[in-house]
Amino acid sequence: MRPGGPAREVAKRLTPEARRAQIIAVAERLFTTHPYGELGVPEVARALGITSGLVYHYFPTKEALLVAAVEARARELLESCLPDAGLPVLEQIEHGVRGYFDYCEAHSLAYRNLLRGPTASEPEVVRICESARVAIVEHFVQAVGVASKGMPATRLALRAYMGFAEHAIVSWLEHKQVARATLENMCRTMMLTALRVGLSSDASSPSSARQLALLEQACQQRFSTT
Amino acid sequence: MRPGGPAREVAKRLTPEARRAQIIAVAERLFTTHPYGELGVPEVARALGITSGLVYHYFPTKEALLVAAVEARARELLESCLPDAGLPVLEQIEHGVRGYFDYCEAHSLAYRNLLRGPTASEPEVVRICESARVAIVEHFVQAVGVASKGMPATRLALRAYMGFAEHAIVSWLEHKQVARATLENMCRTMMLTALRVGLSSDASSPSSARQLALLEQACQQRFSTT
Repeated sequence: MRPGGPAREVAKRLTPEARRAQIIAVAERLFTTHPYGELGVPEVARALGITSGLVYHYFPTKEALLVAAVEARARELLESCLPDAGLPVLEQIEHGVRGYFDYCEAHSLAYRNLLRGPTASEPEVVRICESARVAIVEHFVQAVGVASKGMPATRLALRAYMGFAEHAIVSWLEHKQVARATLENMCRTMMLTALRVGLSSDASSPSSARQLALLEQACQQRFSTT
Repeated sequence: MRPGGPAREVAKRLTPEARRAQIIAVAERLFTTHPYGELGVPEVARALGITSGLVYHYFPTKEALLVAAVEARARELLESCLPDAGLPVLEQIEHGVRGYFDYCEAHSLAYRNLLRGPTASEPEVVRICESARVAIVEHFVQAVGVASKGMPATRLALRAYMGFAEHAIVSWLEHKQVARATLENMCRTMMLTALRVGLSSDASSPSSARQLALLEQACQQRFSTT
């Protein structure tokens, strides 16, 4: 057998995309389980049985690896939880909350690591997580028909709701203290309340007052017929 | 003038309590403005113009200094936001939210540092912050009359509400995007909704169902008369 063994032989056959994905997957696992300060490209290369040079070919620094891993997770999360913008707002809330939970349950360790793991306070991780939250907030701000800038209370309430959901889900993933349906209902209720209180605080704007009226109408229809 | 200058002379006259408080105050400032890894007892001693030995006399390690500083902040926060347990629950929510905001506004940098600063992910800081949240949750669980263990949804909803409030306040302290009264109203509404949705999810317990009925009654009385 040649030096490097079977792993290296198999590794040689990978396409660049597959190699990149393989490096990211291993780096992500190491970032989850080791203090960030103790890791470097050589540790990632060793875990893969490849040379550091090959890792550097794809990622110039450890930070670049971390960013790639976290950006991939954030993209997956958004794909899972941003609902079809053509749906009525209450259905968007329902689909959004369910999609967010689906993702968190399927990738429980990755999700908790993103928010509470050893790299959670790295500035690049903080930045990527914040961008994902802003993408969700802006999606739902548009879902209630607010296209323009402004609406500071609505945006603040939705942004803070993300804090509610994250604390709730991290705790729930660890303790499963209630049924998932119970927590989903809790999050839907809190998100809807955040939208209502935000829009009503912004109500000096005619567009916000109109959107609040539409939202209340949708709630009445929904909760009187189901 | 003797070596060490006036600062050292004044310092010599401090009582042990005052010295301890002085060391904590300076350490807290350094923890806020420097990466934790770059600080040590010698840096704190130098900033105070005293010997490292004198700091070690009060605090055996840098970690002990950090714990003392964060515990002092957490204690102050709790003193400010835990309302009189004899008040009706809606008034407790009002006083609690107002007290929490009073503290955050008066100690804006310290509060943001606790949650987002360079030491925010240190395990001891995470532990102390979590204890403070639990103290607040347990206070309000008792405020709605739930004395026993259990009530998992109520506890989870209140715990997650703390995540809402923290995200809201950190953002607001930085951007002041709405009036404080608007944000206080938002937090009161969200906290009350968290209690309602938690109690109603726990409603298979007779005590929870009874407490929810009392809470709804209190809301009706309050919001029909004011």
